[in-house]
Amino acid sequence: MSRFLNIVPVADAVATVLRISPGLMTETVPVESVAGRILAADVTADTDIPGFDRSVVDGYAVRAADTAGAGEAIPALLHCTGWISMGRQDTKLAVGPGTCAYIPTGGVLPAGADAVVMVEYTEEAADTVLVKKAVSHSENVLLRNEDFKQGETVFSSGRRISPQDAGVLAACGCAAVTVAKKPVVGIISTGNELVPVTAVPEPGQVRDANASMLAAYLMEYGCIPRVYGIIADEREAFEAILARAVPECDVVLLSGGSSKDDRDMTAAVIATMGTVLVHGIAIAPGKPTIIGRIAEKPVFGLPGHPASAFVVLIAIVRPLLDRMLGISRPIQRTARATLTINIPSQRGREEYVRVRVEKGVATPLFGKSGLLNTLIRSDGLICIPAGSEGLEQGSMVEVILW
Amino acid sequence: MSRFLNIVPVADAVATVLRISPGLMTETVPVESVAGRILAADVTADTDIPGFDRSVVDGYAVRAADTAGAGEAIPALLHCTGWISMGRQDTKLAVGPGTCAYIPTGGVLPAGADAVVMVEYTEEAADTVLVKKAVSHSENVLLRNEDFKQGETVFSSGRRISPQDAGVLAACGCAAVTVAKKPVVGIISTGNELVPVTAVPEPGQVRDANASMLAAYLMEYGCIPRVYGIIADEREAFEAILARAVPECDVVLLSGGSSKDDRDMTAAVIATMGTVLVHGIAIAPGKPTIIGRIAEKPVFGLPGHPASAFVVLIAIVRPLLDRMLGISRPIQRTARATLTINIPSQRGREEYVRVRVEKGVATPLFGKSGLLNTLIRSDGLICIPAGSEGLEQGSMVEVILW
Repeated sequence: MSRFLNIVPVADAVATVLRISPGLMTETVPVESVAGRILAADVTADTDIPGFDRSVVDGYAVRAADTAGAGEAIPALLHCTGWISMGRQDTKLAVGPGTCAYIPTGGVLPAGADAVVMVEYTEEAADTVLVKKAVSHSENVLLRNEDFKQGETVFSSGRRISPQDAGVLAACGCAAVTVAKKPVVGIISTGNELVPVTAVPEPGQVRDANASMLAAYLMEYGCIPRVYGIIADEREAFEAILARAVPECDVVLLSGGSSKDDRDMTAAVIATMGTVLVHGIAIAPGKPTIIGRIAEKPVFGLPGHPASAFVVLIAIVRPLLDRMLGISRPIQRTARATLTINIPSQRGREEYVRVRVEKGVATPLFGKSGLLNTLIRSDGLICIPAGSEGLEQGSMVEVILW
Repeated sequence: MSRFLNIVPVADAVATVLRISPGLMTETVPVESVAGRILAADVTADTDIPGFDRSVVDGYAVRAADTAGAGEAIPALLHCTGWISMGRQDTKLAVGPGTCAYIPTGGVLPAGADAVVMVEYTEEAADTVLVKKAVSHSENVLLRNEDFKQGETVFSSGRRISPQDAGVLAACGCAAVTVAKKPVVGIISTGNELVPVTAVPEPGQVRDANASMLAAYLMEYGCIPRVYGIIADEREAFEAILARAVPECDVVLLSGGSSKDDRDMTAAVIATMGTVLVHGIAIAPGKPTIIGRIAEKPVFGLPGHPASAFVVLIAIVRPLLDRMLGISRPIQRTARATLTINIPSQRGREEYVRVRVEKGVATPLFGKSGLLNTLIRSDGLICIPAGSEGLEQGSMVEVILW
């Protein structure tokens, strides 16, 4: 192995992961449990929504013309001919000139009526209703297909399904929703310095933080993490675990080892079992990242430190997940903020800086890159492009929110 | 039942739900699956992190003084006395004046050394290392307990656990994490106009959209939704389903019926089986909301239309969930944006307006409140306080993001 890495730009690394991305796989899930999934097919309205002219208030169905000029002082007097029932169309009931019918919210507007007066603006006196406010045509009525027309595309494939989307999918009759299958992502921890979370580290040892961080990230991103534990820094152990993980997963992340030996071992084993495509990316932190492929499956060697691994996860692994999930519009949350101070940066590498964000103002958290405390005390990252020598105080930046 | 509701301000409704909130329940979950859960106990570092002076780069451990004045033209010449192994403290190896030792990223700084020179700034010639850059004291070294001191509080209870938090919890030795138990929330759909998602609505009927929307929201918010289906608008059916749901759930949401009859039935049944505390809130949309209590469990009657139910969910139900989950800082995402136009509002009620947000600019989506399409085409809500007559064009607003 060479002492120095052959560094590629972030754009090239991303192009590589997109090129080796497994295709989109789909499955159907019940609409009640579709939250956060990615729609994998367009959805059209199978009927008009609403399917009938519908009152949006409790009140009286009227002919708008009959209320012209009506007010508190001179109410319109209408003869009430009946009550509309919920859930069905009353074909016998019709509203003629000078008459009205009581209608509940959601009721079908009866024949002859073209508007609804809210009950708050009426008064009943036996069969007569005093209307104290004029209404215009179709006021307080949701017209047939005003929301969605039958056959209209309501959602496009690639959308992350929000709770409201789930409601509208139900309204469109999608009891079973076609969504992207959750990619199974294997997490293998490597590095002789690593000990399990349950152990008390001896001098020189650190607990495996990456596995839990990666598992949590992948779970929130809509994947199924599969944690394989800590593997001894021996070639046979690496090969054995990869031989097991690659067939069981769609993507494999090797993570945890921070030493060059460990990274070299990772690269050597990937090269033996498959191909190393990238070893070294012009990104800070995260330079010593490996992208490879074994049996058509993407395999990553992530940097050992959690803060570096996280940046690589966001900048390099996420585009792969987006492709596998068929995401059409980035689901990464971002916010615009004004930078409090100048941040100088080294040209030639994309640099990610942790920031706090408060009321639209982003303050960089400096400190050694290996610190965990700035990782949990920050609100997100800002990216300084490779071509830039830094960002200026007062400039508007896009913060990649945690 | 009275024809008009006894409307209470939003603040009173929220105070009521907080008063009847069940207490926080906790459980422990493995750190690998802790994503998105709410921490229910403070977490302290059980050891110093790192537990030793740790190199953050691959390079040579040196005495900083030995590199003073070193540069590309006149490198410092140091005698390399050995290699540091990963994962253990090499007690025999020490760096004396004029010497250095190879150290991998994550290695323990040997006795005598006080800094690390990156390998990129060195050259090897047999046992001699040419150092071409001066380093200062502790440069490229993470000092013992520089990240967290043993006994230091790393996380406070009530925090929503991010992926990075999960990593740091692992680093702190939290293999099992004490988190808030997920509240079980029952969802009962009511209203004679409702048909299941699988049915094709007849005139007057609508599909039950609320159940799927509520289930998705609750799932994303960290609750366990339990969907009971559509209940016929009969007193016996209401009582039977509540008698089943109340013992099975921590909170029950009755939703779906939009007519006054349906709401009256809901209120009457809650009053019979328990207490109605609020019937009518000064909120738009969402006025005809019911808050009650059966067998010490909060029971809500939500408005029938999904758009209204969603506003009540965010404004009234969410504070209850926050209390039950012990959330210390709101987890509702918000963004600041500039309003494009004036929005007039009626004093005396808190009004929620759907907006699109693009590049820091919020544009209200007007249209009838009963529309679903503005619900899915908007990015969030802005709230106009009850005391305000509206919001002015150009003002900075806080958008409650979907």
